[in-house]
Amino acid sequence: MTNKKKATIKDIANVLNISPAAVSKALHDDSRISTKTKEAVKKVAKDLNYQPNHLASALRKGKSHLVGVIVPRTNSNFFSSVIQNIEEVLNKEGYNIIITQSNESYKKECNNIDTLLFTQVDGIIASMANETIDLEYYKKVKSKGIPLILFDRGENDLNVDYIGINDYDSSHMIVEHLVKQGCKRIAHIGGYKHTRIFNNRIRGYVDALKKYDLPLDNELLIESSLTIKDGREKMLQLLSLKNRPDAVYVAGDYAALGALQILNEQHINMPKDMALVGFGNEPFTSMVTPTISSINQHSAEIGKLAAKTFLEHAKKATIKQSLNKIILDAELIVRDSSSIIKK
Amino acid sequence: MTNKKKATIKDIANVLNISPAAVSKALHDDSRISTKTKEAVKKVAKDLNYQPNHLASALRKGKSHLVGVIVPRTNSNFFSSVIQNIEEVLNKEGYNIIITQSNESYKKECNNIDTLLFTQVDGIIASMANETIDLEYYKKVKSKGIPLILFDRGENDLNVDYIGINDYDSSHMIVEHLVKQGCKRIAHIGGYKHTRIFNNRIRGYVDALKKYDLPLDNELLIESSLTIKDGREKMLQLLSLKNRPDAVYVAGDYAALGALQILNEQHINMPKDMALVGFGNEPFTSMVTPTISSINQHSAEIGKLAAKTFLEHAKKATIKQSLNKIILDAELIVRDSSSIIKK
Repeated sequence: MTNKKKATIKDIANVLNISPAAVSKALHDDSRISTKTKEAVKKVAKDLNYQPNHLASALRKGKSHLVGVIVPRTNSNFFSSVIQNIEEVLNKEGYNIIITQSNESYKKECNNIDTLLFTQVDGIIASMANETIDLEYYKKVKSKGIPLILFDRGENDLNVDYIGINDYDSSHMIVEHLVKQGCKRIAHIGGYKHTRIFNNRIRGYVDALKKYDLPLDNELLIESSLTIKDGREKMLQLLSLKNRPDAVYVAGDYAALGALQILNEQHINMPKDMALVGFGNEPFTSMVTPTISSINQHSAEIGKLAAKTFLEHAKKATIKQSLNKIILDAELIVRDSSSIIKK
Repeated sequence: MTNKKKATIKDIANVLNISPAAVSKALHDDSRISTKTKEAVKKVAKDLNYQPNHLASALRKGKSHLVGVIVPRTNSNFFSSVIQNIEEVLNKEGYNIIITQSNESYKKECNNIDTLLFTQVDGIIASMANETIDLEYYKKVKSKGIPLILFDRGENDLNVDYIGINDYDSSHMIVEHLVKQGCKRIAHIGGYKHTRIFNNRIRGYVDALKKYDLPLDNELLIESSLTIKDGREKMLQLLSLKNRPDAVYVAGDYAALGALQILNEQHINMPKDMALVGFGNEPFTSMVTPTISSINQHSAEIGKLAAKTFLEHAKKATIKQSLNKIILDAELIVRDSSSIIKK
């Protein structure tokens, strides 16, 4: 750290009484500059402790060394941990990242894509907004030959690299765990059906119920925006049923937290009278009372793999043809909210 | 939402068999284009449902309509709530934001500033990294005539707009509250002294102790990085003292959470044997046991005011001369961790 003003190409030019363009050419070993001038320029550059501006240099080479990241929101531990890990891997390779959030809005996501294209990013790593059905903007990224890597929330139709966890199997693990705890009426507060990951979780839930000969009751399967507020509302809806469930599997931890608040407010014993399982392993799941069982989505690994996939593209002159489709196995972390049978 | 491919200037040019440049000039009412051609171009543009690319148009006018935001990290409710509110205000006025995080690193913050300047942002709204002492990079932003607004963590020396809360008074409020609860040895796990806001909190703590004739004991005033991990370590340090404190005021909620974990693990009764107050009102403070008293930093208002301050600059042709220095009064939210005297 120094407070001294940085030397510029202009400073070097002034010392030698030549043009800044000549200095720049000399520093890049341009054949139009004499060896004598090159040596003089390099000596002055060293004397003035001149540091080249890497971004300007990158731009000349047609690379911004910027990677754009689009997430539904930053205030989720899952997304901020993915971002953190993308950043760690890319920083080491000389890339900076810029982050935009869609707030689950399709329109905002389109704006974000335009913004990132405008800033000349070398690649985009994205997780889609809940609202997004139309893939036009993502196709625009592809058509420009800019590497696009999706994580967590992606779409098969786009045919791009994808990193995520096995959502279908995660639901199976959760239902199996609840069945072993003795639960017989298992409800699912799920995400939007049109979003692939939530659809997979719903399919996993339905198939697991069939496997264990449990009733598939339409009133126990509820679509939700998965906010805390909506988790509260959907839990109230389940409690108002004539034939209440004895377990609730919520497809997101924030909505699970809302459900937990309602259960606590109504003094319903967890897990004895209502077992609860969330999804995402947000840090608060181990802080609340009772602690909430949840699925660990391996955010760190997802972030690292997404960054590495981008780097594979960046190192190739042309877009690489084979795609990475990486599906990680998730892990169920059992906590108090669903531990009916003590070991 | 439509899947139909958007019409481009090239499409209009093809229909009329003229050059794209001529179409662009016609759409901008350039005097070099005949009235007849202009009318033909505008009719075809309407027929094809042509939508101009606003970003490209903004760039021609020398405005990107992008605002860069720099935060120490996104996975803090305070920072993500500020970002959310900046975004809401600026989106309405046609601006998009791009977010970068410093991870408390000076070097990364410098890279972020370079990145944002490179992407031609119209302004920067920032909260400084813990490590930042050298203001060279922020001065570079100022020297380029780009509006710079600091929030929460700023520096008087920079002489730019600033929005924050009254940290000095907040410490006073906390110490006064603890004194009223009967506490006599109040410790402070503070942030880095060189960071203005943390310095103000330390000064407020010291002056409040004097006001209430409490001992200012050097072993009770500890500098910390304010992470969960460091909060744990500093709490252990306080517990190892021969003459233990009976209250701890921690300058950040994450470190307060670490302190709470240690106190719970060691079965120390809160608030009777140790009262605890945090800072920032992170959502988890009302989820843990016991709930943690904390300072509400008015993140929503700070975000809105920062965005409005930027807009004041943007609406003026030249940088406005008078500065906004907005210091909001904070609010102490008393919870179980420091409620010794029940009302």
